[in-house]
Amino acid sequence: MNFEVLHTDGAARRGCLTTAHGPVATPAFMAVGTAATVKGLTVPQIVASGTEIILGNTYHLMLRPGAERIARLGGLHAFMNWPGPILTDSGGYQVMSLAALRTIDETGVTFTSHLDGARHDLSPERAVEIQDLLDADITMVLDECTPFPVSEAEAAESMRRSMRWAERCKTAFRVRPGYGLFGIVQGGVFPELRRESAAALAEIGFDGYAVGGLAVGEGQEAMLAVLDATVPSLPADRPRYLMGVGKPADLVGAVQRGIDMFDCVLPTRSGRTGQAFTRRGTLNIRNARHQEDARPIDPECACTTCATHSRAYLHHLFRADEMLGPILLTVHNLYYYQALMADLRGAIEAGSLADFAATFASAQAQGDLPPIEGNTL
Amino acid sequence: MNFEVLHTDGAARRGCLTTAHGPVATPAFMAVGTAATVKGLTVPQIVASGTEIILGNTYHLMLRPGAERIARLGGLHAFMNWPGPILTDSGGYQVMSLAALRTIDETGVTFTSHLDGARHDLSPERAVEIQDLLDADITMVLDECTPFPVSEAEAAESMRRSMRWAERCKTAFRVRPGYGLFGIVQGGVFPELRRESAAALAEIGFDGYAVGGLAVGEGQEAMLAVLDATVPSLPADRPRYLMGVGKPADLVGAVQRGIDMFDCVLPTRSGRTGQAFTRRGTLNIRNARHQEDARPIDPECACTTCATHSRAYLHHLFRADEMLGPILLTVHNLYYYQALMADLRGAIEAGSLADFAATFASAQAQGDLPPIEGNTL
Repeated sequence: MNFEVLHTDGAARRGCLTTAHGPVATPAFMAVGTAATVKGLTVPQIVASGTEIILGNTYHLMLRPGAERIARLGGLHAFMNWPGPILTDSGGYQVMSLAALRTIDETGVTFTSHLDGARHDLSPERAVEIQDLLDADITMVLDECTPFPVSEAEAAESMRRSMRWAERCKTAFRVRPGYGLFGIVQGGVFPELRRESAAALAEIGFDGYAVGGLAVGEGQEAMLAVLDATVPSLPADRPRYLMGVGKPADLVGAVQRGIDMFDCVLPTRSGRTGQAFTRRGTLNIRNARHQEDARPIDPECACTTCATHSRAYLHHLFRADEMLGPILLTVHNLYYYQALMADLRGAIEAGSLADFAATFASAQAQGDLPPIEGNTL
Repeated sequence: MNFEVLHTDGAARRGCLTTAHGPVATPAFMAVGTAATVKGLTVPQIVASGTEIILGNTYHLMLRPGAERIARLGGLHAFMNWPGPILTDSGGYQVMSLAALRTIDETGVTFTSHLDGARHDLSPERAVEIQDLLDADITMVLDECTPFPVSEAEAAESMRRSMRWAERCKTAFRVRPGYGLFGIVQGGVFPELRRESAAALAEIGFDGYAVGGLAVGEGQEAMLAVLDATVPSLPADRPRYLMGVGKPADLVGAVQRGIDMFDCVLPTRSGRTGQAFTRRGTLNIRNARHQEDARPIDPECACTTCATHSRAYLHHLFRADEMLGPILLTVHNLYYYQALMADLRGAIEAGSLADFAATFASAQAQGDLPPIEGNTL
């Protein structure tokens, strides 16, 4: 799996990751497609957002419709008709957050499905096998996402088991051109553990390195501190992926620290609940002040939602519980995220990332558009 | 409002209705856009289905977001960004079926909103005013949709009041080029009452004539018998609209009897619950036999859903309660309906409607595709 750094600006990198299903411009945001669908969007809508790579969830797909079934139907790309690259997580995080009756030991994880109560085993080897059945371009190692808060001793024990699992995943992984396996750095908020984990993974050798166990309640400051402690220990010639992050400001801060890839449910999940992202921060479209506002969510946005629909209409759709509301807001939010990533890539190319970050922060702090002068509606 | 009959085949007509927002090829199927949205579809998806005209529901829109608000936002076309023609119903039918505490007298209807319990009055004059505020290309008169079953005396009394209301609507209607007012024939399943109603409306004079009070449980045979009794009494130079109908076979039978326009929630509502329409009848995509079927819903269908997604994938989406399932199936069903209307128009032009209807009926009777030979999945 080829990765090329094309430009740098401080610690930030503008690169290109080449997968079996095409190239990805980095820094990249991966839309979350949990159950073989980016919720509410058709494939042309995903493409139109500027999304080049999506994330599938092993936990959900192994339970329904099943990895073997997806393999018989030609793999996840064919199954959902997504032509581009796919990264799948290992299932470990969802087992911890969604499954019932889970037990974890050196072998792996045993858990009960949240869907039908059936028992399942997930070992490092099975996690890799499932992702191979799914035909994931990027396979993630099985790890334990250390909870927060946790003691340093517990974080160390958990991280070291994850490192042993990472080695077993490397052994189990079937090497193919354009397909890659990423290791995951753990160690909680403890810099020494993070460095130990990064070194252990680099020693095993992976196609990319993820920073896991963040965005679990530690806050932005602690998260960026972990990146400061971790990223310098990661191999410079391989992509770096910050898992499950985050808000727009998190992405900017992490890109400034050398992160190349992200995934997060925020743009899609927020879109379904009425929260919109804009250059001036977030707004809730259900708020009554939008009910006769003929302006788009974000007048500077080039997405189809902003080009064709008013806040008043979106407000109505959400108040009336019409599914088109979540669809149109998801279209906007994902476009916003991808436009931000494109802006970040452009700023790195131009060597102006610090300026961009400052302008971004002051625009976000402005708050939503003021009411139109003289509008008595 | 111009209407031209271009071809006939028996009682069937191939025509063109010209509205303020563009032409409509008839016989036409109007997609139902109750609350200023065809549920689950973006405007480009509605256009791609072949839909030329949509229906909005006065009852829903007057309650939320309100007719005056839509008028301040530029009318219903601007509000939902639908560039084509819109027909609005009068609200009468939904008042009867959805509102609580309704009372009806010569003045009109008083009812309590199902949303917030607020009291509302709907008179013939107010129904026309609301539709004018919405900027409907086609306004429907306020009528009472006579329930089924009902005695002939009750049907007569109800129908005659609707005729008096129709005259008041005609008086209240603001005449503008490209905008029209349709009368509605009532009279239950009683041929004499239907003929009396049709004659009364023709005497008042409308831009089009609807047949109302059907598809309320009387069955296809009784419905077609009402058309046989009614359509010959309607002015030949004006469009005829069968309200709230129906299944594909109903459309074929009604077109053969000279109906030019239809609306029905079936393609969209069925799409949300997993029922798909095909040339070989209906199927329920939730059925387990589709779970590894890589074929499209209908191999002869040219919609984007059939071009890009398998039954197995759609089955998965519905089983996983993913909103993309209803979206993709609504896309297919509405396309199916519009393709059927295009086929009907082509058959009338070719003078082969009887042959088309016979071929249609035998294909529908076939049932779903057999499993693929040797497919052990």
